[in-house]
Amino acid sequence: MHDDRDGRVFDWLDAAAESRRRAGLVRELRPRAADAAPLDLAGNDYLGLCRHPEVIAAAAAAAAEWGAGATGSRLVTGSTALHARLEAELAAFCGFEAALVLASGYAANLAVLTALGGRGALIVSDAANHASLIDGCRLSRADVAVVPHADPDAFAKALDDHPGRALAVTDAVFSVDGDAAPLTALAAACRAHGAALVVDDAHGLGVLGEGGRGAVAAAGLAGAPDVVATVTLSKSLGSQGGAVLGPARVIAHLVNTARTLIFDTGLAPPAAGAALGALRLLRREPARAGRVRAVAAELHRRLAAAGLPATRPDAAVVSVRAPSPEAAVRWAADCRAAGIAVGCFRPPSVPDGVSRLRLTARADLTDDQLDRAVSEIIRTAPAAGGSGR
Amino acid sequence: MHDDRDGRVFDWLDAAAESRRRAGLVRELRPRAADAAPLDLAGNDYLGLCRHPEVIAAAAAAAAEWGAGATGSRLVTGSTALHARLEAELAAFCGFEAALVLASGYAANLAVLTALGGRGALIVSDAANHASLIDGCRLSRADVAVVPHADPDAFAKALDDHPGRALAVTDAVFSVDGDAAPLTALAAACRAHGAALVVDDAHGLGVLGEGGRGAVAAAGLAGAPDVVATVTLSKSLGSQGGAVLGPARVIAHLVNTARTLIFDTGLAPPAAGAALGALRLLRREPARAGRVRAVAAELHRRLAAAGLPATRPDAAVVSVRAPSPEAAVRWAADCRAAGIAVGCFRPPSVPDGVSRLRLTARADLTDDQLDRAVSEIIRTAPAAGGSGR
Ligand SMILES: Cc1ncc(COP(=O)(O)O)c(C=O)c1O
Ligand SMILES: Cc1ncc(COP(=O)(O)O)c(C=O)c1O
Repeated sequence: MHDDRDGRVFDWLDAAAESRRRAGLVRELRPRAADAAPLDLAGNDYLGLCRHPEVIAAAAAAAAEWGAGATGSRLVTGSTALHARLEAELAAFCGFEAALVLASGYAANLAVLTALGGRGALIVSDAANHASLIDGCRLSRADVAVVPHADPDAFAKALDDHPGRALAVTDAVFSVDGDAAPLTALAAACRAHGAALVVDDAHGLGVLGEGGRGAVAAAGLAGAPDVVATVTLSKSLGSQGGAVLGPARVIAHLVNTARTLIFDTGLAPPAAGAALGALRLLRREPARAGRVRAVAAELHRRLAAAGLPATRPDAAVVSVRAPSPEAAVRWAADCRAAGIAVGCFRPPSVPDGVSRLRLTARADLTDDQLDRAVSEIIRTAPAAGGSGR
Repeated sequence: MHDDRDGRVFDWLDAAAESRRRAGLVRELRPRAADAAPLDLAGNDYLGLCRHPEVIAAAAAAAAEWGAGATGSRLVTGSTALHARLEAELAAFCGFEAALVLASGYAANLAVLTALGGRGALIVSDAANHASLIDGCRLSRADVAVVPHADPDAFAKALDDHPGRALAVTDAVFSVDGDAAPLTALAAACRAHGAALVVDDAHGLGVLGEGGRGAVAAAGLAGAPDVVATVTLSKSLGSQGGAVLGPARVIAHLVNTARTLIFDTGLAPPAAGAALGALRLLRREPARAGRVRAVAAELHRRLAAAGLPATRPDAAVVSVRAPSPEAAVRWAADCRAAGIAVGCFRPPSVPDGVSRLRLTARADLTDDQLDRAVSEIIRTAPAAGGSGR
């Protein structure tokens, strides 16, 4: 049935692979083993809850009570009392009127921007926003103005020009460099223009604000009638899934119009259960949030003291620039060989084309572990200013 | 800090809600309870594996071994040996060289179309394709030609006009009416034009093909060098997640370029574990696939014999047209009151604007349950030809 021509349909992929190879930009999956776990400074399990016995037990209990999957869209069979409980507790914890749980943080961002955007609307978007927000802008059919990073005046200027419905969207904590958005100034700019503010608090939840209530709560914006937040259940809450938080009428609008809610299977009950378990743990142990910030600050202090170009963390993420993609890959590999897992971000995953290590703090990192991680990262660092070693 | 103007930012949503209400198109989440479970003819747990003890145990075991979440992107910390095992077994079962697991079927469809599309490419897409494929087309930046439903000649004609790289995309089994795509003819049209064929086998896996290997395998297209399939882990496999199946070089290309792989947290281990458990069960009990087809055929036979406008099922889905959205809602509510859960699909979730009940067969439905469901659906049906009752 096949002939030679069929086999050539994907030949163009080989050329793309070859040019990635030449640019030092090949990515491969490297599955980890269950035992030989390295010291993890790469994941987003900021509070160390992903393997907490209570969270694991909550996942197992939800599987037993509700099954392994949701079996359908949230609008058909995919809404359980567990989802409703998670939504109520998330909204209450973060200080919003209502919440809607989706299958991922990615899906939550697509949901809010497609449902609140639409033809004729304007979305003003920070240039360093997460890919899921960028994809949400593209899917929204709105006019999109991408403005310079963390620049409230640029947001205000973009909003000036638009007569109709508008919204501004920003990460609360930018995923690569870990810097915080100027939320107070952004909210003021939005209010001066009658625009809504959408904040992706993926990296703020569990880390910033009182007891980890997030960056939006920390800025006094939680529950405001013109503010919508998204969070993910996959980072501080150690699970999978995402949620939109906002006024009840916004949530009702999403239920009726958001394609990633209507046409996607609901979040699996084990993931919903685990996230709820983690949220309850965080409420009971609010000091975890302060601890992760302290670890991040200490990580930065020591790397900077050693002369490495590390970003000052506003939350749990510290990034360190590398002279080239190849140097970043080698640095990360050397760390891994020494038993330390670090993130290695290269184009196109970095907004500015600069490769770097991305390091994450965890609330459960011990002082000894931090010592060991820091000394290996410093030991394996590329020569300053060089293009490798 | 807030003034009246802030509170008016979302006033436009009230008007949208009011027009939905007037059109009979309001959607609300109706969380189900763990106990009072109705007889389910609405979910997509076609093989009845979502609550199978082995599948539940697999979810719990994966949570214990790997944690409740993947902790990061598949490219950072989010790939485990469990993900790799699931990929190997899915690829082998469905007959493909390689597989890539993503956080949802929705994400899998976005991944494949964005990675294989791109500027200058042409995607020819069936008018009744699933929302996730439509969104994938929109995100791909390719030229998109939407062609009439299940019409290979229309695909061929659209491909005629394009000089460059092209691909055709179709659901294998259409989600609303349950009809199968003409895969053999579509593959022939693609081959005559040097185009790739992408098939979403979400509703074929576990139901069609030998032992539930899916519609692509049934058509003899699995493993072909010019064919890519996507599947979801959330239907027949009773869990959550999605996968892309295809030639190894396609999978490698996705790892390097697909935004919903690179920028999304990996599938939660409990979901990966549950899906793997379900896949192994299906391999051991291949008769489940035949049973679900037999139940669907019997469901159709009895509804049609009673004069209801039910579609003849090519897989596990039977749809029955209703005279209006209001009549569909009332019909579904009457079924629910009688203890039978049925899907109610209304605009904008139906490609043609016609509201209908969507009924799904399950391999574990007993004859008694089928009797009861059929008699309640017939009893509560709106008067023929009327616009309600
Ligand atoms: C800022 C930001 N938003 C959204 C997401 C997507 O969330 P998820 O991975 O849970 O889908 C991520 C990370 O993955 C992120 O870093
Ligand atoms: C045809 C089809 N493709 C893709 C999807 C998306 O899969 P998932 O819900 O697992 O994200 C669905 C259903 O939800 C579907 O019906």
